[in-house]
Amino acid sequence: MDRFYEKIPCSTSNLGAGYDVFGLSLELFLEIEARFGLRKVINLPRHLENSLLNIESKVHKILSIEKPKSLTWNVNSKIPIGKGLGSSASLIVGILKIVSFAHSIRLSDQELIALASSIEGHPDNVSPTILGGLTISFTDPDGNFKAIKASIREFPKSVVFVPDFSLQTRKARQVVPCEVKVSDAIKNISQTNIILESLYSKRYNIMKYAIHDRLHENYRASLIPGYIEVKNKIMNDGAYFASLSGAGPSIFAFVPEDFDPEGAVHKWLEFGVKAKYYFLNVYLK
Amino acid sequence: MDRFYEKIPCSTSNLGAGYDVFGLSLELFLEIEARFGLRKVINLPRHLENSLLNIESKVHKILSIEKPKSLTWNVNSKIPIGKGLGSSASLIVGILKIVSFAHSIRLSDQELIALASSIEGHPDNVSPTILGGLTISFTDPDGNFKAIKASIREFPKSVVFVPDFSLQTRKARQVVPCEVKVSDAIKNISQTNIILESLYSKRYNIMKYAIHDRLHENYRASLIPGYIEVKNKIMNDGAYFASLSGAGPSIFAFVPEDFDPEGAVHKWLEFGVKAKYYFLNVYLK
Repeated sequence: MDRFYEKIPCSTSNLGAGYDVFGLSLELFLEIEARFGLRKVINLPRHLENSLLNIESKVHKILSIEKPKSLTWNVNSKIPIGKGLGSSASLIVGILKIVSFAHSIRLSDQELIALASSIEGHPDNVSPTILGGLTISFTDPDGNFKAIKASIREFPKSVVFVPDFSLQTRKARQVVPCEVKVSDAIKNISQTNIILESLYSKRYNIMKYAIHDRLHENYRASLIPGYIEVKNKIMNDGAYFASLSGAGPSIFAFVPEDFDPEGAVHKWLEFGVKAKYYFLNVYLK
Repeated sequence: MDRFYEKIPCSTSNLGAGYDVFGLSLELFLEIEARFGLRKVINLPRHLENSLLNIESKVHKILSIEKPKSLTWNVNSKIPIGKGLGSSASLIVGILKIVSFAHSIRLSDQELIALASSIEGHPDNVSPTILGGLTISFTDPDGNFKAIKASIREFPKSVVFVPDFSLQTRKARQVVPCEVKVSDAIKNISQTNIILESLYSKRYNIMKYAIHDRLHENYRASLIPGYIEVKNKIMNDGAYFASLSGAGPSIFAFVPEDFDPEGAVHKWLEFGVKAKYYFLNVYLK
């Protein structure tokens, strides 16, 4: 076989209080193909080409591949980049799957999660991209990244609002402090369990108690004009839940079937931000 | 009607990482009866008599009752006191229910939770005592104590190991610091969601990833001789999960049907601690 192909979903992470823990796989895909040939990249702008080749090198290193096979990469991605939808995690997972397959290395899902997370630096986007659905990421007592997929097969409708500017995850992480009050940690613990309970019991209206993250969202919101006002507008327009998508700047929301996203788009325009929205199904795998 | 009677379950709280959030109602009961008559207490040692009358006064105050009716209290409790099984929460809930009923004040479950928690100081024992089953306690944005009962109808077998000494909750709370690393908060968030996911999906073996609380257990363990060794013994003997019960000193565990608790009892004896164990069903209400 000289052609390898993977179709990888995007993901939203955190769901507010589930900072670095929750990830949700969504049906917006990156398609990635590789053939034996020259080591090069087709179909990507130059700076992303470098990013892909850089990830490819890291994958070789992490898999201890001494004689890498040259691959010509072709990428077709619908995932917006730098918007908080896990595009880099999806790219890492795609490359990792193809390179390991090309070298006849079989990896379990948990091995993929551990390796991809160590390249990405955190597991919350990598895990849903690999397992599908809603994932709970964690590090085991030996320090290995792992994830558990929740056995939830039905989710409410979801919508992602994607503004026309980007945030660097690195920058968005730098604004988050390293210590918190125990009382704030407790608030996040209860909120994340309310989210999981709400999804299991389909009592989506209790998610309104779980939109007040205390660990990262307020700090990151300061980088996004109009974030708080737009989030409030989404909730006032009937959403069950709204939060920053990953490190932002996109906003993720669970909504009822008849939700109208136009109000939130107009609200963001008041702050000079043009945004698109995508209704996306959860990718269950 | 001149006789009031309530049968109130005990509870274990926290389940390790769910500090101040998780509570689980267990089938070990406090029976409390009151009749119109002299304000006095039957069937309790003097210091607990004062405690009961003190709670009764607080209940009158919190319900804004200006002319309290005199009640003669009779208590029959199977709940060990000062062992981390929520005996004071059960007593508060019993008195609150009876006094409100005697004054024709109707309280919803959420009102009971808010009032009883404000007397107790924290909601994690009060909530399961009122709602039954597993509860997720939280404070809403207005600062009111609230709780959601998880829609879980089946739990694994549970056992509580109760040592022959007591810990004051107040003292056990003082040893817990006020700030934590964000990385520790994240560890607790993931662990609590693993517990809930495990109970919903009946994959009880994943709970082994959720026995490493980072907010309170290690600090409180320092007050309990042999705690870490006994907890390890319980896990090594096949338990799915083990944690401090509430503020301690008891240990709560989810176990398979064939679990033998004798090994843990002997292990604790090595540290000079005599302990009893109780197999208790979850009280679902």
